[in-house]
Amino acid sequence: MTQTITEGHITDIPLSEVLARRARVLQRVAESGCRGMVFFSAASQTYLTGTALIATERPIVLILKEDGHTSLLVPRLELEHARDCAKGVDRLEWYPEYPSLKHPMAYLADLLSSLDLDRGHVAADSDGYGPHFGYRGPKLSGMCGDMELTLLPRLVEELKAIKSPFDLTLLRESARWANLAHALLQEYTKEGLGEIEVSDRASHEATQAMLKALGPDFRPNHGTNAHAVYRGQIGPNSYFPHSVTANRVFRRGDTLVTGATAPVLGCNTELERVLFLGEPRQEQVLFYEHALAIQDIALHTIRPGIPCAQVDQAVMRYYEENDLMLYWRHHTGHSVGFAKHESPFFDQNDQTIIQPGMVFTIEPGLYVAGLGGFRLSDTVAVTETGVEKITYYPTQIDQIICDP
Amino acid sequence: MTQTITEGHITDIPLSEVLARRARVLQRVAESGCRGMVFFSAASQTYLTGTALIATERPIVLILKEDGHTSLLVPRLELEHARDCAKGVDRLEWYPEYPSLKHPMAYLADLLSSLDLDRGHVAADSDGYGPHFGYRGPKLSGMCGDMELTLLPRLVEELKAIKSPFDLTLLRESARWANLAHALLQEYTKEGLGEIEVSDRASHEATQAMLKALGPDFRPNHGTNAHAVYRGQIGPNSYFPHSVTANRVFRRGDTLVTGATAPVLGCNTELERVLFLGEPRQEQVLFYEHALAIQDIALHTIRPGIPCAQVDQAVMRYYEENDLMLYWRHHTGHSVGFAKHESPFFDQNDQTIIQPGMVFTIEPGLYVAGLGGFRLSDTVAVTETGVEKITYYPTQIDQIICDP
Repeated sequence: MTQTITEGHITDIPLSEVLARRARVLQRVAESGCRGMVFFSAASQTYLTGTALIATERPIVLILKEDGHTSLLVPRLELEHARDCAKGVDRLEWYPEYPSLKHPMAYLADLLSSLDLDRGHVAADSDGYGPHFGYRGPKLSGMCGDMELTLLPRLVEELKAIKSPFDLTLLRESARWANLAHALLQEYTKEGLGEIEVSDRASHEATQAMLKALGPDFRPNHGTNAHAVYRGQIGPNSYFPHSVTANRVFRRGDTLVTGATAPVLGCNTELERVLFLGEPRQEQVLFYEHALAIQDIALHTIRPGIPCAQVDQAVMRYYEENDLMLYWRHHTGHSVGFAKHESPFFDQNDQTIIQPGMVFTIEPGLYVAGLGGFRLSDTVAVTETGVEKITYYPTQIDQIICDP
Repeated sequence: MTQTITEGHITDIPLSEVLARRARVLQRVAESGCRGMVFFSAASQTYLTGTALIATERPIVLILKEDGHTSLLVPRLELEHARDCAKGVDRLEWYPEYPSLKHPMAYLADLLSSLDLDRGHVAADSDGYGPHFGYRGPKLSGMCGDMELTLLPRLVEELKAIKSPFDLTLLRESARWANLAHALLQEYTKEGLGEIEVSDRASHEATQAMLKALGPDFRPNHGTNAHAVYRGQIGPNSYFPHSVTANRVFRRGDTLVTGATAPVLGCNTELERVLFLGEPRQEQVLFYEHALAIQDIALHTIRPGIPCAQVDQAVMRYYEENDLMLYWRHHTGHSVGFAKHESPFFDQNDQTIIQPGMVFTIEPGLYVAGLGGFRLSDTVAVTETGVEKITYYPTQIDQIICDP
């Protein structure tokens, strides 16, 4: 038997993974009766090339043909960079600049023509490049007279909702470094310090540990840092579910709400906890135990085959039965993995059927005026029979006290 | 004479500034024959309320009526937060969630009706909320049967192109802390260290200095950190104009390209430099001097009353006359101040007339395979008679050497 050596340590997104993603896209493109698809979305391009290029006022366009042939149109300044890093690109074309004498979309029209995609049924994720960073340009639908355009704006989003085994490996790696950043955040939080000082220190050290642990071949080119933050959710301000960083100072007795993640080759988990600065008072413990209970209800409801709404409904019943609706502010969770928030949602009107490979946050919360916010968020993956918990930071009260 | 005490230290965006921005918007809305305008763009909402709220799958909608009456529609989780921080909002309405039983756009329709904006000529920045974070929803144009919708997607962008005296004050403040971050970046860059370690340390220390200098009343709620980075532009990789952070290690002889900024109440400058690790070789000095020369040409061309294209054309002549087109990759600069890139552009096909109050980057570059990138970026404001240099980091060779 021939010996096979495989690489257990992941340093970059393999071409095989990128090609598998494209195959799923092209199956859907074919089902829609189209001969190819044009992508203007930077997030979709990253997903389908394994590389993050920086799109600004200068559009970047990815084109997949039904036979898998892949073209990329870039501005001049990205030509050599794209050649160096974009995976599985058969044809790389460029235009000089935007707003230059000939519009980038005129170059795109030329490229589509030479690819024989200027006529017949062609799909696109949007009808031209959006108004990013001051860009203006024509719609794709007016550019090629004989093209019949089918817009499939949700195609990649829908495929991304099911994570591959490789994506799940990246998410488990992300959870590890989010956990370290969060542990350091808790360790460094002391009365009298400011939130930015503490979160920068924890994030910096976690990032360095992550980079050294993953080694010099690891390419953090989709974003670099493990980080843990408070985002202004300090003491009474943790009452605002979407507070923003305000350099607040920690005071004894504060209820704190955190957030931590670590991007790993474009994948992100979400980890959030309640922390207490010093021993919590009875009132804090009461709401914290409710927060634990509702998260636990969600965790034990999720399984393949039921609608997303059912998870939120189970959680809502707890609020109602315990007379807690006064403290309700938002749904139970959202999909996550590539973007910070993805669809589908654990919301009472999301009828999407839960499937294996979906990855969700579970983060129902209680918000008490004057006292603060009580929200824990964990990232879980749906399995054939239930859920895998991806994030794993402790939740017992004696383990979430800062500066005891 | 009655004594007046004004506050020289700026800690937040004053309501007067927000109202002045809205007055300029409403003048244009009136000129377009509309009775009010609906804003879905988070950036425009920040500009017009002085507050950054976090829009996710849950749309936030700002509505200005011709008489200045201002309404804000937020999801339930942002209600108290918006009440606490959104400036000059006359009417604050909320919807429970997205995707909840009643769609957020149905709440918007109700609000427009009660504002008498469901009929007649009404403007909007886009035809509904975009597909952000998994959101799906109807177009605004189909929601109110008697509304005649005028899309003004560029209105705020065009107004933002002219910075107010207050905006310029924020940009000068931004330049100060970008300069500190950049000075620390240079100081800490040593052979054998990694780019992320150095940039995190410089950025962290500059941020702490900035926050302490500006004092506890300063509200960094539009983004918090002064930062200086390499973004992968290390040695031969600085050849890629839009390289991305890759945790590269500094080697003696490297040409390095930097980037630094500091957000101050939503305003950002851009500062970029070439640095050399150790004494530069003759070839490095040669291209660096070309980079200085072309930046200087741009600086001495900019004045009110000429088209933006003229600045780029003057720079392009230098490339051509000195046989440097092989090293050209991009236009001379872009507007900046609120977003990272804004229009108009110093590009040969941008015929926009330069006006006082416009703020641009000047950043022509030369990119030499195997050697690296040579690009300096400075932020300048157009005055009545020429330009004010906002960023000011040194450019003399003996002042841009790391680890000598």
